[in-house]
Amino acid sequence: MSLSTSVLPSLEALFPADAMSTEAAECAVYAYDNSRREAIPDAVVFPSTHEQVLALVRLCREHRIALTARGRGTNTTGASVPVAAGIVASFERMNRILKIDPDNRLAVVEPGVLNADLQAALKPHGFFWAPDPTSAPYCSIAGNIACNAGGPRAVKYGATRDNVLALRAVDGRGEAFRSGKPTTKGATGYDLTRLLIGSEGTLAIVTEATLKLTALAPDKRTLRATYVDISTAAAAVARIMAQPVTPCALEYMDGEALKLARNHAGDSIPEAGAMLIIEVDGETGALPSAVAAISRAATGDGLIELHAASNNSEVDALWSARKALSPALRTLAPNKINEDVVVPVSRVPDLIAGLKTISERNAIPIVTFGHAGNGNIHVNLLYRPEDPVQAANAPGCLSEVFDLVFSLDGLLSGEHGIGLTKREFMPRALDTVSLDLMRLIKAQFDPDGILNPGKLLPDPASS
Amino acid sequence: MSLSTSVLPSLEALFPADAMSTEAAECAVYAYDNSRREAIPDAVVFPSTHEQVLALVRLCREHRIALTARGRGTNTTGASVPVAAGIVASFERMNRILKIDPDNRLAVVEPGVLNADLQAALKPHGFFWAPDPTSAPYCSIAGNIACNAGGPRAVKYGATRDNVLALRAVDGRGEAFRSGKPTTKGATGYDLTRLLIGSEGTLAIVTEATLKLTALAPDKRTLRATYVDISTAAAAVARIMAQPVTPCALEYMDGEALKLARNHAGDSIPEAGAMLIIEVDGETGALPSAVAAISRAATGDGLIELHAASNNSEVDALWSARKALSPALRTLAPNKINEDVVVPVSRVPDLIAGLKTISERNAIPIVTFGHAGNGNIHVNLLYRPEDPVQAANAPGCLSEVFDLVFSLDGLLSGEHGIGLTKREFMPRALDTVSLDLMRLIKAQFDPDGILNPGKLLPDPASS
Repeated sequence: MSLSTSVLPSLEALFPADAMSTEAAECAVYAYDNSRREAIPDAVVFPSTHEQVLALVRLCREHRIALTARGRGTNTTGASVPVAAGIVASFERMNRILKIDPDNRLAVVEPGVLNADLQAALKPHGFFWAPDPTSAPYCSIAGNIACNAGGPRAVKYGATRDNVLALRAVDGRGEAFRSGKPTTKGATGYDLTRLLIGSEGTLAIVTEATLKLTALAPDKRTLRATYVDISTAAAAVARIMAQPVTPCALEYMDGEALKLARNHAGDSIPEAGAMLIIEVDGETGALPSAVAAISRAATGDGLIELHAASNNSEVDALWSARKALSPALRTLAPNKINEDVVVPVSRVPDLIAGLKTISERNAIPIVTFGHAGNGNIHVNLLYRPEDPVQAANAPGCLSEVFDLVFSLDGLLSGEHGIGLTKREFMPRALDTVSLDLMRLIKAQFDPDGILNPGKLLPDPASS
Repeated sequence: MSLSTSVLPSLEALFPADAMSTEAAECAVYAYDNSRREAIPDAVVFPSTHEQVLALVRLCREHRIALTARGRGTNTTGASVPVAAGIVASFERMNRILKIDPDNRLAVVEPGVLNADLQAALKPHGFFWAPDPTSAPYCSIAGNIACNAGGPRAVKYGATRDNVLALRAVDGRGEAFRSGKPTTKGATGYDLTRLLIGSEGTLAIVTEATLKLTALAPDKRTLRATYVDISTAAAAVARIMAQPVTPCALEYMDGEALKLARNHAGDSIPEAGAMLIIEVDGETGALPSAVAAISRAATGDGLIELHAASNNSEVDALWSARKALSPALRTLAPNKINEDVVVPVSRVPDLIAGLKTISERNAIPIVTFGHAGNGNIHVNLLYRPEDPVQAANAPGCLSEVFDLVFSLDGLLSGEHGIGLTKREFMPRALDTVSLDLMRLIKAQFDPDGILNPGKLLPDPASS
């Protein structure tokens, strides 16, 4: 369905010249995201002001046109795929850092600023913004907000929801509002800011964000700990998180992930059943005792070697291997199912043990790595569609993975979100009343369902 | 209005024997809170299970009876005063700590657990729960949740909203649900947990909370810094918060507050125009450099003396003087207006300067102290109703205080909440669309308006 002739002139007036396109080739560029799902929009527009966004939402509401806000499409869940066609609003041109305010430990940004560009701008001031997804060089702040993005540092510094002070937004009714204030405290009404964070563009479109900054620690130590198998590594994770020194990263890779990492980074990556990358930061003088505390906790059954990185290139090799995992796995298995489950940290060993059983029963290799300190494990089902047994088993295998996660009091997603690909599982992840309340909230913010339709919440029939 | 005879038998069946009272004397005990507002309920009930709460809400909804959930009534805004009479549900008997789980850094509690009782139970495990209002020995966790309570530690460790993982609750429709999970990450739907936090019992009644714990720092240093006047002290606050070492407390008192503190704690409290109490915590080895960084920032125009507390009794004297301020001010001026505004930290000097002008113009003494590191200043208007000039000026003076706060991009309340006493100012604090969205949310969770009516949101006519 293309846009009616009654809409196009208004849209063109609002987004003149190259601020809009209905060309098939350009629309195709905005049809997909990192989920490999695809749906071609009728038009793509490139807002550059809040006022344009406001007028756009009002136009879309008037004509009941689906409107999908898009950061840089790095998400893995189809959250930015315009399944109902309509208009994609790509925020790549609204990419100014409006203010860096060290006195109040905050930055004010337009939605399209890239995460890494912000971090680079903050560094000279001695600050950073906590969320640091692997896609940081390519992903936008508003995308981070939409998905409640995390990353390795979240274990100490929190995810997006913990690091946003205020938002400016336009709801699905076409009404503009501001939530929150440039303050670190507030008890003045309902928390609309955090309601929008993680709502995947289904409630409102963010046009400005005030972000809470954290001071860069003056120093850091990086350890790597290898274990004979994943269960003993998972047990070490639980021990590390149960003692007082909070690492600023606690990453985990299983043996298969380690093999891939060796392919990428070479022999500096050890062979083992599993490996942890553990970082602690703080004042230089405090690091020896912090490293000692972490080392005691990391030591136990199954430990092969605990090694402190001796120089920056060793640290870089560890992280580059870790960050290469997701793309490497995709090269290996283009149709891999990439999940992002989260369980209480003490249940990570049970999760890992359960995944092993599920993998064997379904004859589908499962590779795991991720942010173990948050219990946030990336579970990769490396199924090959050309293998009839695997193809037949894949859906059931995924369902078993989620059943396992729910039995461990976990959640569908820790930081990737729900989007298109996981919404059918929401009725198993949440109770009926919670889902109902979410639907009621959606209906208030977006009564005509124009904002990112078909995402996050399942169709009522399926619950 | 008393409860109809059609309701009483059901209520008595649900809350047998001493779990309920309609006696005037007992109802009077649950009529007021620390706001000195008062309204007698028709009945008070003492739930001891989630199921009782569920049945209670359903009964109230069926009969359109106002239902006010009450922790310990320590709040200062009238939030627990049952202005529409009906039923008060006091949670003092639902006071069990259900689980302390150091492995997952969480505790599960019933709503009526006292803050200080929880802290005492956590201490042997090496953890604490961040919110620490002055009323900690007397206030309940669910009260902290209702008001998004803070306290001195919030400057480093966050307020209630930053330290709750999951809730069990019953909404105003009489539907029970769970929000959140015992995990530190989650990107699975809208954030109902934080929507309930700070909602003052107007959306749902919390029956269980899963709290995020923080490891106790092994060591701490306490500094006191005195300044010739409040403006130079406020400037020091802004400098301290602009450098990387985050204090775990940064409290401020003006000269008048200091005089009161001396009355309470004696000559160990210095005379000055203003004083800061600054604490840093961490590994013992890291504290000298942290103290040095804080000292550099605290030093500047107007500094009289920077003094490191040399022993625990000196630290205790400082804190006991600080904590005695609010009750001492009340004794001095029983009808004082006690506000709890918050502004960006860099605007604290402007706030303090502006308050001085307002105080002089209205001939009403204003005493200020509070959590300066969050920009959260307790503003006390010491007006005497028997002074005709002060009595005439008081309402306008308060209004000017809020205008000043709004002009500095601040909020009505940092941690006390809105309740009864501040809701009329909400239309000036928030934009119309935000308020409207809050009202729409309220209408979904509590379509008949039975939960804590007359609180937080202003009447539609007033906005």
